[in-house]
Amino acid sequence: MRYLAIISYDGSNYSGYQIQPNQLTIQAVIEAALTKMHKGEPVKITASGRTDAGVHAYGQVIHFDSELDIPESNWKKALNSLLPGDIVVLDVKQVSENFHARFDAIKKTYIYTILNSADANPFEINYCAHVKERLNVDLMNQALQDLIGEHDFTAFCAANSYVKGDKIRTIYHASCQRVNNKVVFSVTGNGFLYNMVRIIVGTLIEIGLGQRPATDIKRIIESKDRTQAGKTAPPQGLYLNAVEYDLN
Amino acid sequence: MRYLAIISYDGSNYSGYQIQPNQLTIQAVIEAALTKMHKGEPVKITASGRTDAGVHAYGQVIHFDSELDIPESNWKKALNSLLPGDIVVLDVKQVSENFHARFDAIKKTYIYTILNSADANPFEINYCAHVKERLNVDLMNQALQDLIGEHDFTAFCAANSYVKGDKIRTIYHASCQRVNNKVVFSVTGNGFLYNMVRIIVGTLIEIGLGQRPATDIKRIIESKDRTQAGKTAPPQGLYLNAVEYDLN
Repeated sequence: MRYLAIISYDGSNYSGYQIQPNQLTIQAVIEAALTKMHKGEPVKITASGRTDAGVHAYGQVIHFDSELDIPESNWKKALNSLLPGDIVVLDVKQVSENFHARFDAIKKTYIYTILNSADANPFEINYCAHVKERLNVDLMNQALQDLIGEHDFTAFCAANSYVKGDKIRTIYHASCQRVNNKVVFSVTGNGFLYNMVRIIVGTLIEIGLGQRPATDIKRIIESKDRTQAGKTAPPQGLYLNAVEYDLN
Repeated sequence: MRYLAIISYDGSNYSGYQIQPNQLTIQAVIEAALTKMHKGEPVKITASGRTDAGVHAYGQVIHFDSELDIPESNWKKALNSLLPGDIVVLDVKQVSENFHARFDAIKKTYIYTILNSADANPFEINYCAHVKERLNVDLMNQALQDLIGEHDFTAFCAANSYVKGDKIRTIYHASCQRVNNKVVFSVTGNGFLYNMVRIIVGTLIEIGLGQRPATDIKRIIESKDRTQAGKTAPPQGLYLNAVEYDLN
């Protein structure tokens, strides 16, 4: 039987999602919990995509196979009792044996949180980027209009990354808003290139600070040149918010 | 010259406020930053009181002496540039040379945050206690009325603690309220015994769950017996919110 699980995690103490030798990773910890439930028989999980070191998830999706005869509702309880407190299973559902957490994802939403205040906040260092000067959110939202639609996002992809196939992606929604002393950015697309959200945010911050014109996104996309975009924003402000599937 | 500084810290990664050999403590880190500013000459700080391992502060107050000729406004900047991100100086003011951060404190306010939801939250494990069953906040507020005023709080003091003088303290304000999926407790008093807030909260949780009557606080105070009160709530929900002085 194949199961889908929705997972939330605080990435602060992990070397990212993907399993690596001698590193504490989200994948390794979840697989260890599942393997324990299967009395030592190794269980592999497949996620919708990796998250980097320090990046968080509100709704990461994974799938795994199991022959265990456990009611759906008990999976969540059993897994959470074996997982550390900074990784929480929100839901487990049985799915068709053809379901694939990565290949079947049709939309992903990321959130990026910026603490926008003169003072630092000791409670936010793992959870936000910090920008001291006031960001112009109107300019940022204006700039984001040029992100929406189908584009070749080569300029917003880490220069050293290996991407199978083209770098054309479709962005359905992108906006930011001020919430108290934070600026929260949200973006939904059919897929994202390596570091794409963090490069968008790094560029957006420069626009919000008046260091680039709001019209720059269009020019950068057309350049297909990573050096035209802004800095890569730090990982700790990034959250994989949700992954959507057409489960019919 | 004597200076007062208001400090906020995330206590998650520290073995408490007070300096201890071979431990990372708030006091040691702040003294190291000050000593660095004084070119290696040791500078000692005195706080309004200690906080335990894992306990946080929004507004801890310390004092220290310095002969450095720095404008008040530059102290904050200089210290924050030397401190790690999870300890932040919010303000530095010059005070009279008789000022004492502990002896002159006239009121302290603590906040205690409880995540009150069936599901755990991976982002809150260092910042809240977690109670899965729904707490009755009305009953808790009712119970808190008996805390207000001057009482001998022996029953709400860690049994093994050494307290100079009597255990009579005055509570000016105590209340709790539901904020989304959290219950936030706030208490102001002229002083607190060791573990007093955490024992109050532990008792209050049992009242909120219907495991004790709301009238129990009065009975427990009168008993002067630690074993009559509830469990000591965990440190990570506790925040030293503010310390008040009569600076005239």
